[in-house]
Amino acid sequence: MDYQAILEQIRSDITPHLGQGKVASYIPALASADPHDFAMSLHLINGESFHTGLSDKPFSIQSISKVFMYEMALSLFEESILSRVNVEPSGNPFNSLIQLEYENGIPRNPFINPGAIVIADMLTSHFGDNADQSILQYFQNSSDNFSIHIDTQIALSERQSGFRNYALAHLMKSFGNITNEIDNVLHTYFNACSICANTIQLSRCMLHLANHGVDPVTNNKLLSAEHAKRINALMLTCGHYDASGEFAYKIGLPGKSGVGGGIVAIVPNVMSIAVYSPSLNHHGNSLIGTMALELFIRYSGHTIF
Amino acid sequence: MDYQAILEQIRSDITPHLGQGKVASYIPALASADPHDFAMSLHLINGESFHTGLSDKPFSIQSISKVFMYEMALSLFEESILSRVNVEPSGNPFNSLIQLEYENGIPRNPFINPGAIVIADMLTSHFGDNADQSILQYFQNSSDNFSIHIDTQIALSERQSGFRNYALAHLMKSFGNITNEIDNVLHTYFNACSICANTIQLSRCMLHLANHGVDPVTNNKLLSAEHAKRINALMLTCGHYDASGEFAYKIGLPGKSGVGGGIVAIVPNVMSIAVYSPSLNHHGNSLIGTMALELFIRYSGHTIF
Amino acid sequence: MDYQAILEQIRSDITPHLGQGKVASYIPALASADPHDFAMSLHLINGESFHTGLSDKPFSIQSISKVFMYEMALSLFEESILSRVNVEPSGNPFNSLIQLEYENGIPRNPFINPGAIVIADMLTSHFGDNADQSILQYFQNSSDNFSIHIDTQIALSERQSGFRNYALAHLMKSFGNITNEIDNVLHTYFNACSICANTIQLSRCMLHLANHGVDPVTNNKLLSAEHAKRINALMLTCGHYDASGEFAYKIGLPGKSGVGGGIVAIVPNVMSIAVYSPSLNHHGNSLIGTMALELFIRYSGHTIF
Amino acid sequence: MDYQAILEQIRSDITPHLGQGKVASYIPALASADPHDFAMSLHLINGESFHTGLSDKPFSIQSISKVFMYEMALSLFEESILSRVNVEPSGNPFNSLIQLEYENGIPRNPFINPGAIVIADMLTSHFGDNADQSILQYFQNSSDNFSIHIDTQIALSERQSGFRNYALAHLMKSFGNITNEIDNVLHTYFNACSICANTIQLSRCMLHLANHGVDPVTNNKLLSAEHAKRINALMLTCGHYDASGEFAYKIGLPGKSGVGGGIVAIVPNVMSIAVYSPSLNHHGNSLIGTMALELFIRYSGHTIF
Repeated sequence: MDYQAILEQIRSDITPHLGQGKVASYIPALASADPHDFAMSLHLINGESFHTGLSDKPFSIQSISKVFMYEMALSLFEESILSRVNVEPSGNPFNSLIQLEYENGIPRNPFINPGAIVIADMLTSHFGDNADQSILQYFQNSSDNFSIHIDTQIALSERQSGFRNYALAHLMKSFGNITNEIDNVLHTYFNACSICANTIQLSRCMLHLANHGVDPVTNNKLLSAEHAKRINALMLTCGHYDASGEFAYKIGLPGKSGVGGGIVAIVPNVMSIAVYSPSLNHHGNSLIGTMALELFIRYSGHTIF
Repeated sequence: MDYQAILEQIRSDITPHLGQGKVASYIPALASADPHDFAMSLHLINGESFHTGLSDKPFSIQSISKVFMYEMALSLFEESILSRVNVEPSGNPFNSLIQLEYENGIPRNPFINPGAIVIADMLTSHFGDNADQSILQYFQNSSDNFSIHIDTQIALSERQSGFRNYALAHLMKSFGNITNEIDNVLHTYFNACSICANTIQLSRCMLHLANHGVDPVTNNKLLSAEHAKRINALMLTCGHYDASGEFAYKIGLPGKSGVGGGIVAIVPNVMSIAVYSPSLNHHGNSLIGTMALELFIRYSGHTIF
Repeated sequence: MDYQAILEQIRSDITPHLGQGKVASYIPALASADPHDFAMSLHLINGESFHTGLSDKPFSIQSISKVFMYEMALSLFEESILSRVNVEPSGNPFNSLIQLEYENGIPRNPFINPGAIVIADMLTSHFGDNADQSILQYFQNSSDNFSIHIDTQIALSERQSGFRNYALAHLMKSFGNITNEIDNVLHTYFNACSICANTIQLSRCMLHLANHGVDPVTNNKLLSAEHAKRINALMLTCGHYDASGEFAYKIGLPGKSGVGGGIVAIVPNVMSIAVYSPSLNHHGNSLIGTMALELFIRYSGHTIF
Repeated sequence: MDYQAILEQIRSDITPHLGQGKVASYIPALASADPHDFAMSLHLINGESFHTGLSDKPFSIQSISKVFMYEMALSLFEESILSRVNVEPSGNPFNSLIQLEYENGIPRNPFINPGAIVIADMLTSHFGDNADQSILQYFQNSSDNFSIHIDTQIALSERQSGFRNYALAHLMKSFGNITNEIDNVLHTYFNACSICANTIQLSRCMLHLANHGVDPVTNNKLLSAEHAKRINALMLTCGHYDASGEFAYKIGLPGKSGVGGGIVAIVPNVMSIAVYSPSLNHHGNSLIGTMALELFIRYSGHTIF
């Protein structure tokens, strides 16, 4: 299949829609993103890669980091993780406290904010104060690239405006589901959300998830096959907040979005995908990114079903 | 792969657990099921089939009928269906009214009761008073077998104890999302839930979903490839009520359970599966059936991820 | 105090506001009410009465009937009533199902629809098919006036559009909190809501609640002093749906409103009040009626605090 | 009426029940309270007072301070307060976040924790860092007694275990309904909750609420008559968390409870009451205190209805 031609066709198709939607505005670094930016990258398990648009422009990956944090925690803590974070779709916005109060401080899944904050707590317990650096190294390792970095200015902005996340952390601590100091846990969380990468790096990072946990280029085994399957299943059921069902219904690939405008997706046994465009739809997922993935599915015919 | 040997191994593995869990007790026909019953059937797209246990004993398929009702409605009404029934996981029990009131009478998905009642309303509008017979024929047609039938005694019991379903229908009618008389809509709904089939028939019915909508034996095209994909995606995200995430996480196949103790599952491009054992776990899914599917995944290695 | 002068002053004050708000439109009989209608009546425990406006024009008292239904049930069933209907403010709209599902079919209080439906069930159990006539007689008896009647046309309209009430009744029956046939219970309920009276009759009916349960004119003991106190307390905490707190805060008298535009209120040891104007505020309480009661409090200085 | 005899009769009646219920255990100072303690005090507007039990033993008044904080804020900010804190019963536990999220950070009323935290924010804006001292002075002034004090050890414990209150404050700040630094606001809040007084002082403090805002002993006008009425109405509808309706139904007086075991109540135009016993019922209100008030109502016949 001529993937480069497909990418160019997609880029041509989405161009008239660039600028639709709204960029995230709750912190300056995100609010200043150019709504006309677009990039898309594919990494095949045979080592080939294809790119279009601003594929070397780094952006804030935000919630996409939740996938990697959960990978790390699953490898470290195995099934015991389920006593602290569930694996069910939430059906609620990413930062809702309602379900959390009804369900005694156990988050529905690790891809909504409270779930990722509990995972940050577990990683902070294991790695100590430098848990954010361990997360960054995991990224660098999985992408075989060391220019991925944490944007500390973004992390600071996140902290200063992060009242909802503080509320979530305190609520969970009142139920005993946060064990470290809240400031330390949220330091880990906000820094992980502030990791910056471009679509080339980001799709490269995800490649092991298309290959049962093993990076097919380096033969580095990042995850067991069983865990890789679970990560993919979670991305399919919970990867897009309260629009996860619609993403599965229309696109049908495991994927995860971030409020910075990035989306990653996996075609098992074939490739990993990253797309970037900062304008969001009303669910908080990249509007153009979602569109690009729908087009990719249509043009390539790839499906897991 | 020696599927017969796998089935026999599974049967041997689950035997010590038979009788655990609880059979549904809200109507006599379900309450009288023998908790030691077990059956499992596979139909491969190459035409082969494998069976173990009481695979010729019919049981009430209950919510599994929701898959077929949605197939029919999707073929008839296409995307317009989305204005009346959403495709998001609910995160709530199958018969909850809470979300429905907050969301103005639009059910989260067609696999919880209110969603299937709206689908029953759409099919009643299209087929009239004999909508239940049209649904039965669709089953018979998709299984290439005409001994599948509606158990009218079960349908009557469902109606007599179905206060929650009447409440759901009236609540949706108050929002304008039910167009026919409620008694007619629920006649269609209860009769569809009271279809009886054995695992041989049930796995045979589902085979087209493993083959992009086309029955590979008869070459009968039941669904478009696009629609078949959507049904599979919905089964993965919403097929097991508030345990859908866990089913995806642990088993990772599109599937649908019924309170009668049946579960169906699909390995795309390979086979369809039906399993039966009437004792339920606390989510209302077959306890032994779920266990059997987990074992099948482990022994066969089949996965979509 | 010159109550007639106060009433005339109130009438003059509210006249420029007549027509504001919206009349209830869910059934024809209410939708056709004239938004410029206004009436207000006072009955003192010394036997005097004062009236202004269309005080002899009958209107549908709607939820005000819930007070009398609860009086009857409290006298018949005493404290045992609390196992089926609670006495807490709901903080939710009058016809919400959400709290009812969370709280296993036990309504928060008898002045929201589900609570009154349970009371209708209790009265139907006691009085049989003519429970509605028994309720009517209680009204006639307490007002010493036999021209109060049930408008059967309104009752029919209520039934035809009452999907929400059917949903509430079925949900409660699923929890075992309705014992009679739903159609019979709702016959009692809809007929009681369709009682018609004018403000003269309505304030006269309530007079015993200003006098510890005894009608001071006839010396007829309708309630024990203890029960009269409880009815007044309930009207203060729960009499105006999700605006009960605001009514208590601003007006501070026990009261009950109906969607037909009527409001009754009690000044203990002094008088009973009825006011009518069919346009409603966004909580479903009479806009002008609420205004008139605020003015009455200001001009008369009456308060329970 | 022989109030002293009534108090002694109550004390005799409740003695066999002392020790039932559970003292609050979330901080050491409360957990160490003696469940057999009991005290009750009355202050009449004619200047007389009556006491029984440990009426000179100070205890932590906890949520009773919310009444005084709201008095201060109402005098300062008048009706504008309603844009930040509503006056409706919540129907939920005192520390729930659920309603607050649904209702965009506007608390239902000032007597649940989030409402009192907003009031603490308003008082902190007005009085600055010493807002807690201003609240204390208001207490001393209204009780004409300067030995009422803040127990800073309790305040510290409250802070250390106050994750739920931090969660509430952060959630409201995310909606823009907290204007000061959260630590400053909660300093005011925790210190106000940690005021200690005995029943003599506490009933004395409340006396102006039985006399339309004017202390009948000193003639000190603490509140306007209109505001005094509103405070009493609020205590009646919202004074006891999710048991407010039951308190109004059974006791029928404006009142406010604290988790430290104190309850205050008002008989308008007659007297103020304070009762103390630290064991709580499952709603978090003093078990024996509630019982004592029910007995007082029965023996004295006082009622507002």
